[in-house]
Amino acid sequence: MPIYGGIEAGGTKFSCIIGSDPDHILKESTIRTTTPEETLPRVIEFFARTTETITAIGIGSFGPIDLNRASRSFGYITNTPKPGWRNTDFVGTIGRALKISIVFDTDTNVAALGEVKWGNAQAVDHVLYMTIGTGIGGGFIIKGKPLHGLLHPEMGHMRIPHNWKQDPFAGICPFHGDCLEGLASGPAIYERWGIPGESLPATHQAWALETQYIATGLVNLLCALSPQRIILSGGVMNRVELFNTIRVKMKELSNQYFDHKQLLDNIEEYVVPPKLGKRAGVLGTLALAKDAFDS
Amino acid sequence: MPIYGGIEAGGTKFSCIIGSDPDHILKESTIRTTTPEETLPRVIEFFARTTETITAIGIGSFGPIDLNRASRSFGYITNTPKPGWRNTDFVGTIGRALKISIVFDTDTNVAALGEVKWGNAQAVDHVLYMTIGTGIGGGFIIKGKPLHGLLHPEMGHMRIPHNWKQDPFAGICPFHGDCLEGLASGPAIYERWGIPGESLPATHQAWALETQYIATGLVNLLCALSPQRIILSGGVMNRVELFNTIRVKMKELSNQYFDHKQLLDNIEEYVVPPKLGKRAGVLGTLALAKDAFDS
Repeated sequence: MPIYGGIEAGGTKFSCIIGSDPDHILKESTIRTTTPEETLPRVIEFFARTTETITAIGIGSFGPIDLNRASRSFGYITNTPKPGWRNTDFVGTIGRALKISIVFDTDTNVAALGEVKWGNAQAVDHVLYMTIGTGIGGGFIIKGKPLHGLLHPEMGHMRIPHNWKQDPFAGICPFHGDCLEGLASGPAIYERWGIPGESLPATHQAWALETQYIATGLVNLLCALSPQRIILSGGVMNRVELFNTIRVKMKELSNQYFDHKQLLDNIEEYVVPPKLGKRAGVLGTLALAKDAFDS
Repeated sequence: MPIYGGIEAGGTKFSCIIGSDPDHILKESTIRTTTPEETLPRVIEFFARTTETITAIGIGSFGPIDLNRASRSFGYITNTPKPGWRNTDFVGTIGRALKISIVFDTDTNVAALGEVKWGNAQAVDHVLYMTIGTGIGGGFIIKGKPLHGLLHPEMGHMRIPHNWKQDPFAGICPFHGDCLEGLASGPAIYERWGIPGESLPATHQAWALETQYIATGLVNLLCALSPQRIILSGGVMNRVELFNTIRVKMKELSNQYFDHKQLLDNIEEYVVPPKLGKRAGVLGTLALAKDAFDS
């Protein structure tokens, strides 16, 4: 069985893994995200130390990233607001040091792939995976392939109606103010109420607002992408009661227009958490490498 | 050279065509859209009368339509608000009468295919085609294949921020009120100002509002789909000056986040009209049939 490596690159930590699938993991480690000069050598060291022959490494990275193979900055983290990481040659640095093939994609596309391969989206052709946490991001898989394009999806940055009457908060996105991420990410909840989401009681008005914004974003993505399953993950979704309030609000916002029984009658199976939980991303890196190199 | 048939089914007329490509059209006709009982037999008669051997017929239809081959209502126009057309077995009626293979898709996906094959999106992998007229609809082509999914995209029905201060108009979508179609379609312009768009002067405030709503919708679709080209068509876009105001507004709304030179520097080549003009849809029906049957 071929062995793959994986790197899930996040804003607070890099998760590194070596293995074949969720039942055959040989080695794992977590490295704190500081600067590229410090973090990337530690990642390289993790893989350099292994005695296994690794076929390829899959990387799922925070973004924005450059996925265009014809571009001079292919494999880079590009204009991220994260201090120190702007214009970092992620793929080049890892690939040159380890002399190994790298497959590169966004963190959310990779987590979506993990769920398609081993989780709650197996045998589903069109899968939307959203993470609602420190940021809001989305990945979309069509028949096993992540959607790219001019850049890659940046679903958290769509504009939605801002409920100004109940919510005079301006939003926290440094680029767009009150885009979906600016209104509904974990930091937006904290800034708006002065209390982190996990400390707000279930009865707090924060959750009705959160439900409205997330459900609106999802119905917009339903309009654009027509996914067959929607997987919601991320820190904010640890409030598991949000799953049901979001489902109810989505039906209300659709208002019978999207005439499909999965949406109207079986929405509990349509909008679901990841089966792999917090492991979707790191296991997805193995799926990414495997899909590219298994023949 | 194989000969194909095509039907572009719209709310006011059905355009029927027989040919191979834009340079080899054998026969064309337009049939007024009344009821299915009246219109569909006329369409059938058009094809039945031809002496050519037709390999297959491509249909691009107004919607919503059922594209799921496993569904009992595959090939139907489903819950359209258009009087008389709800639950019409379009593909079955045409296919049984003419004993010919039918390829079925949305009007916008088909027009997008026409532009990919013979128009302004040749050799472009990810193409968004929007029509802004009586309704607002979008089609998306990925590497030559139209995007479907649970249903099919319904891009006109996304929610966008409603500029209530300058625009107290409630919107005209019978399902969603002030969704994009409810705010920015041709009938919305007419209802809001009491004058049809084509009679409003270029200096009228209607156009700044229209620009804002359409550009917001397009930036949202950029977030979801990351298209490499955007084609804008439809009656409202006959106001050609909208192309530039929309481009400028899209850049403003992106606010440097989508860091790609095509968006920032070459937006004139990124957001374009259809090269085939009003013929994109009907020629697209030939592209649809051709793609399915050329080997």
